[in-house]
Amino acid sequence: MTDKKRIALISTGGTIEKTYDELQGVLDNHASVLDVVLATLQLHGVEIVRVPLMNKDSLLMSSQDHELIARTAGMMAEAHDGIVIVHGTDRLAVTGDRIHAQLGTPRVPIVLTGAMRPYVMRNTDASQNLTEALLAVQVMPPGVYVAMHNQVLQFPGVVKDKDRGTFCKTGGPSR
Amino acid sequence: MTDKKRIALISTGGTIEKTYDELQGVLDNHASVLDVVLATLQLHGVEIVRVPLMNKDSLLMSSQDHELIARTAGMMAEAHDGIVIVHGTDRLAVTGDRIHAQLGTPRVPIVLTGAMRPYVMRNTDASQNLTEALLAVQVMPPGVYVAMHNQVLQFPGVVKDKDRGTFCKTGGPSR
Amino acid sequence: MTDKKRIALISTGGTIEKTYDELQGVLDNHASVLDVVLATLQLHGVEIVRVPLMNKDSLLMSSQDHELIARTAGMMAEAHDGIVIVHGTDRLAVTGDRIHAQLGTPRVPIVLTGAMRPYVMRNTDASQNLTEALLAVQVMPPGVYVAMHNQVLQFPGVVKDKDRGTFCKTGGPSR
Amino acid sequence: MTDKKRIALISTGGTIEKTYDELQGVLDNHASVLDVVLATLQLHGVEIVRVPLMNKDSLLMSSQDHELIARTAGMMAEAHDGIVIVHGTDRLAVTGDRIHAQLGTPRVPIVLTGAMRPYVMRNTDASQNLTEALLAVQVMPPGVYVAMHNQVLQFPGVVKDKDRGTFCKTGGPSR
Repeated sequence: MTDKKRIALISTGGTIEKTYDELQGVLDNHASVLDVVLATLQLHGVEIVRVPLMNKDSLLMSSQDHELIARTAGMMAEAHDGIVIVHGTDRLAVTGDRIHAQLGTPRVPIVLTGAMRPYVMRNTDASQNLTEALLAVQVMPPGVYVAMHNQVLQFPGVVKDKDRGTFCKTGGPSR
Repeated sequence: MTDKKRIALISTGGTIEKTYDELQGVLDNHASVLDVVLATLQLHGVEIVRVPLMNKDSLLMSSQDHELIARTAGMMAEAHDGIVIVHGTDRLAVTGDRIHAQLGTPRVPIVLTGAMRPYVMRNTDASQNLTEALLAVQVMPPGVYVAMHNQVLQFPGVVKDKDRGTFCKTGGPSR
Repeated sequence: MTDKKRIALISTGGTIEKTYDELQGVLDNHASVLDVVLATLQLHGVEIVRVPLMNKDSLLMSSQDHELIARTAGMMAEAHDGIVIVHGTDRLAVTGDRIHAQLGTPRVPIVLTGAMRPYVMRNTDASQNLTEALLAVQVMPPGVYVAMHNQVLQFPGVVKDKDRGTFCKTGGPSR
Repeated sequence: MTDKKRIALISTGGTIEKTYDELQGVLDNHASVLDVVLATLQLHGVEIVRVPLMNKDSLLMSSQDHELIARTAGMMAEAHDGIVIVHGTDRLAVTGDRIHAQLGTPRVPIVLTGAMRPYVMRNTDASQNLTEALLAVQVMPPGVYVAMHNQVLQFPGVVKDKDRGTFCKTGGPSR
């Protein structure tokens, strides 16, 4: 289709990409499963440019990591119709705030997403959240957002609600 | 959440709800599986009011059926924040056109969706399309849409592309 | 492993291999999915030799088809440690009886299996039945069997119980 | 069916039953998922009596735990047509040896099984292994076995092959 939107999909790691090493019995960030999830979706609205930036549990991200993601998103926003960032949920809001602080309102929508349960689990939320991010990036006005769990929330003012295992808006600035 | 949007989910049948009768070896519209699909999603943005209107293969819909769906959507639009209609894909565009012809721009977004492969199939598109419809109904401006396969298309001017197995826009009015 | 049993897996079609053509909305015998099912299993006991003999709904099998399957099984039994035959359930017992009539007690176990719900369905019994056939063929004494739904039944005297959707033994000879 | 075999299914925990706590991001033994797995199988050969004995990672089993499992299996063997024991794989062979040391050849088959990847994982081996154990317990002669990964191996002389992630026979006694 000539009118597909060209979207940069920046992957940074996090739960959504965790696999399961049977010999260790633990979940770890070995390989990207994003391509597997994408292959299960019918994507007639977007053409995806994959940008595998890093593969980190977001709890281990340094300030330089957040900075690198924000700057990459800013640069990619100049040449694409929208940006989706796959990110660990624990520090997703830090990156969202960083992008907003640097870019204000970007040229195109920048949508962060992630998962609470990795794709290798039967009850993963990875497919739902990626589906939502890849739709939101087409229909939202320019801005910085998280799309997850049937919500699109705009930065600033987004925090992870650890008790409920999702994101929500606060009255004040997001932490 | 006090600010969840209240959405009427009108089900009319179609592929998305087809089950498989092993003794017949055919697919048929026996029972609604929408509740099963909904249970696999985390829905923090909407509160769903289920309206099981009919359970028909859309190829078997009469003009009265399309009319009934359109009038029901119009009435429900008065009292909800949005409407999602689950519909067989073969005649989905007929119903979308009928709603647009009757209501013009409705008070709230009305989003139709369906599936090419029923939920009971491993490679179903039901989860993707329902996820998209339940997000689009929150973020789109008032209008009549189909949300499916990573696209949100506005009526009038939407047709089923039978060769590609999805929906697209035409230059002229939709058929 | 040097002591793996060498098993000929003769495929003839049937429900287990049915796929779903979304543009037709019907189930049909297009391509073998046996390799996909086999790839999901960990098979440390057998080494499989694939023999794709035919790909037919068993209701459409002629007397020559049954004969061909029986003769192929008999020949393969001379050179392998066991035979598994994937077969449509409707006429599976006819083939089982034919093999028994021709071979009596074969040199090695010959195990037929099939499925009531194809692998492309979420609730398929294909994985269970194939798992059972690939175990039964290692541990049963020479004979002709159907392995399915947690049972190993020996020919002659096996019939399909259409009401319950499985196989059972009769007092008399199987029909 | 009047001639179903009556099988005691003794569950002791292990990987097969592990679930995933999204807020912790670790796998832990919270609740039995055996009933879920059993519900996906068509079991026409056995009638299952559930005996939830303990719910432990086998690495944490004490000598008393192994003893309790062995004695329970011995007692149950007096009143059932067969015994299946679901067990963590790390110490499964210890329990198998203990049962064999105490009972020699039991009155009925006693079949141990487990899983390398829990049922909540898409690529679990739990369904395969449980399917195999529930078939082996019907067709094997009295003895103590592990049924897993397309093999039925008899104690004594069974060890876990940690490199390959499965069980195998040794020349000498199992460790």
